[in-house]
Amino acid sequence: MAKIGIMGHGTVGSGVAKILFDSAELMANRAGEPVEVAKILDLRDFDDLPYSDRFTKDVNDIIGDDSIDVVVECMGGIGAAYQFTKMALLAGKHCITSNKELIATHGKELLSIAAKKKVNYLYEASVGGGIPIVRPLRQCLAANHIVRIAGILNGTTNYILTRMKDGGVAFDMALKEAQELGYAELDPSADVLGHDAQRKICILSHAAFGAELDTSMISCSGIDTLTREDMVYAKEMGRIIKLIAMSQRTDEGYYALVAPMLVPLGSPISVVNDVFNGVMVRGDMVGDTMFYGRGAGMLPTASAVCGDIIDAIWHKNDVKAADKYSDEAPKALDPADAPTRLFVRIKGLEHSEEEAYVLEKMEDIRIVRLSRYPDEFGFITREAPLKVLNEEVDALKCRVEVLQRIRYESL
Amino acid sequence: MAKIGIMGHGTVGSGVAKILFDSAELMANRAGEPVEVAKILDLRDFDDLPYSDRFTKDVNDIIGDDSIDVVVECMGGIGAAYQFTKMALLAGKHCITSNKELIATHGKELLSIAAKKKVNYLYEASVGGGIPIVRPLRQCLAANHIVRIAGILNGTTNYILTRMKDGGVAFDMALKEAQELGYAELDPSADVLGHDAQRKICILSHAAFGAELDTSMISCSGIDTLTREDMVYAKEMGRIIKLIAMSQRTDEGYYALVAPMLVPLGSPISVVNDVFNGVMVRGDMVGDTMFYGRGAGMLPTASAVCGDIIDAIWHKNDVKAADKYSDEAPKALDPADAPTRLFVRIKGLEHSEEEAYVLEKMEDIRIVRLSRYPDEFGFITREAPLKVLNEEVDALKCRVEVLQRIRYESL
Repeated sequence: MAKIGIMGHGTVGSGVAKILFDSAELMANRAGEPVEVAKILDLRDFDDLPYSDRFTKDVNDIIGDDSIDVVVECMGGIGAAYQFTKMALLAGKHCITSNKELIATHGKELLSIAAKKKVNYLYEASVGGGIPIVRPLRQCLAANHIVRIAGILNGTTNYILTRMKDGGVAFDMALKEAQELGYAELDPSADVLGHDAQRKICILSHAAFGAELDTSMISCSGIDTLTREDMVYAKEMGRIIKLIAMSQRTDEGYYALVAPMLVPLGSPISVVNDVFNGVMVRGDMVGDTMFYGRGAGMLPTASAVCGDIIDAIWHKNDVKAADKYSDEAPKALDPADAPTRLFVRIKGLEHSEEEAYVLEKMEDIRIVRLSRYPDEFGFITREAPLKVLNEEVDALKCRVEVLQRIRYESL
Repeated sequence: MAKIGIMGHGTVGSGVAKILFDSAELMANRAGEPVEVAKILDLRDFDDLPYSDRFTKDVNDIIGDDSIDVVVECMGGIGAAYQFTKMALLAGKHCITSNKELIATHGKELLSIAAKKKVNYLYEASVGGGIPIVRPLRQCLAANHIVRIAGILNGTTNYILTRMKDGGVAFDMALKEAQELGYAELDPSADVLGHDAQRKICILSHAAFGAELDTSMISCSGIDTLTREDMVYAKEMGRIIKLIAMSQRTDEGYYALVAPMLVPLGSPISVVNDVFNGVMVRGDMVGDTMFYGRGAGMLPTASAVCGDIIDAIWHKNDVKAADKYSDEAPKALDPADAPTRLFVRIKGLEHSEEEAYVLEKMEDIRIVRLSRYPDEFGFITREAPLKVLNEEVDALKCRVEVLQRIRYESL
């Protein structure tokens, strides 16, 4: 009998409890022993649930209970979640989390405590919801140097972009729809500005090639500045705009960023629509792979947590070998120094003058002109470091108005 | 130091040797100890290789060498590969294979010997080349009842279908191209008739929900009867024809089949092109997921084998827990009894007569008529057991010619 303590009975925590109760037979078969929910920590009351007797408001009922083997943290945030996880690890309990903010912020310390205490600290559910990604990176692809990860890691923004593209609606409207459907929060900034995806690419860079769990060098721009016109240009160019979290390993180190990108239709990532997530992983031996599924939601995320619970029970007396190996942390490079191409929209002078002006100032560009937008035009730059391209585009501003710039990538 | 014996130095075996030599540092870091190629069994001579001193023509140099921990079988076929794998397992060695024919044919016996001898017998590389699929099914998704697997599991046929669709070429021509590119063998029947995909869906059904390793109940039809006209109809219907290997778990058991299917554009599986593979997995908790990548080739397949080597070294003294659990084997049902829809092409009587005749005979159909094919038309049936639909379509033959029938699925 393995005993589980669940901290937090919100969306994910209640999903975990549901699986452990509803699929008890399956869990027991796969874990090799019955899996019991011993205690659930939540400050709220849940009197109507069949397992209401398991609730406690005191974290010590979990940390101090020696019979509890595995603690699941589904509280979110980095306050109590951090404190309680640390206590649980120090008490020698295996911990499992779906909390990407906690891993991206305090993962380094918490993983090191786990290693010292010889317990497992598993976080498959923190990235990509129910999609298997951390374990495939650490185990199945272990014979590869991972050279690139590029993914749609935030379902909320992907839903908004899908609506903008398919429904022709503006960003504000699509956001409102997402909020009404419960896909976006009242304060949507963590999703919309890319911070959620930033945390996730930070975690994947760590899992893939040992990057430090530190988001400070990961540049981040969101989807709030995208317009319906951008969507029209994208379509005309045979591309689609996606919010991509990317991490690239180079000989000098690695760089990671989150930004809207124009990706080609036909790329596997281009069909990742609505709230789905997709992660492309490129290994030196395996080439390109992609992992696709629901990146959030009660049961998908709980599915990943319960997979981790089974794994923790399998490795109750030892740390999983996949979590013992560590790569030397590569140097974090500034993504502004890395090469890319930009799609830029311009407006300002007389029609023919502005085009001539831009052609004179920018090296090797391709003009994109749509008859339905006669007052402006777009162009695609050559490949060069982002910083260089941005300076060149900024310099245009003395004569023309720069309406938009979006990365143009060949994912 | 872990010592590896490789049996067979063909495409996959030489890829495994290449990774073990070229990425020795990475392998040592991840495995936790150096990984050395001790012996390579092959009847041919490879005098020019830097590791030509490791070759042997006598299997006992591997089986009888107590210092060899892990044996990799990349010989193919079910003759010597079966015999030598059995010997290695009985000698207490962990075994790893990329040989789907061997697993699908003798897997039951070999896995049971491995369990008795308390060694690992791992086969991630036998399905989907380098794509992580067996381990995600057994570990990451362990908290799910898997209810359906549907995948493009054969790269050769997927290449041929991609060429028929994009290039407008006939089957024979596309096959010839595939042979010239080395994607198809001189005798292409195992690929083209679906037997390769049949073995793989057999293995995945076993990994996902414990189905017996037995292909006899898995119905199989290939792509050799598909025509350019079929491709045109597919396009007009907003669909694409893919050779799909599918396994569906029901309350009564499960059924599995391989057949060309008309799948909707927009389904994630519809963008799996060329020699790539894609496997959709539906779990009761996680919903739909997809795993995508190169389903064959030297390094992708060797990547999966080497991932298994690392895992076997991690579990040198015990069987991996993920391979200990077993589900009660579900009953194999006849796929002909399972519901589907068919797309049927008809020719024969006078234009108006034949349509009226078919409408009278078939319940609830939707006619598809293309002006470029004035002498024929197509229709999509209602959903009903395949056997029933086939009987109804066969009955039409007394008055009209049935040119084609293809499953029409909502993957």
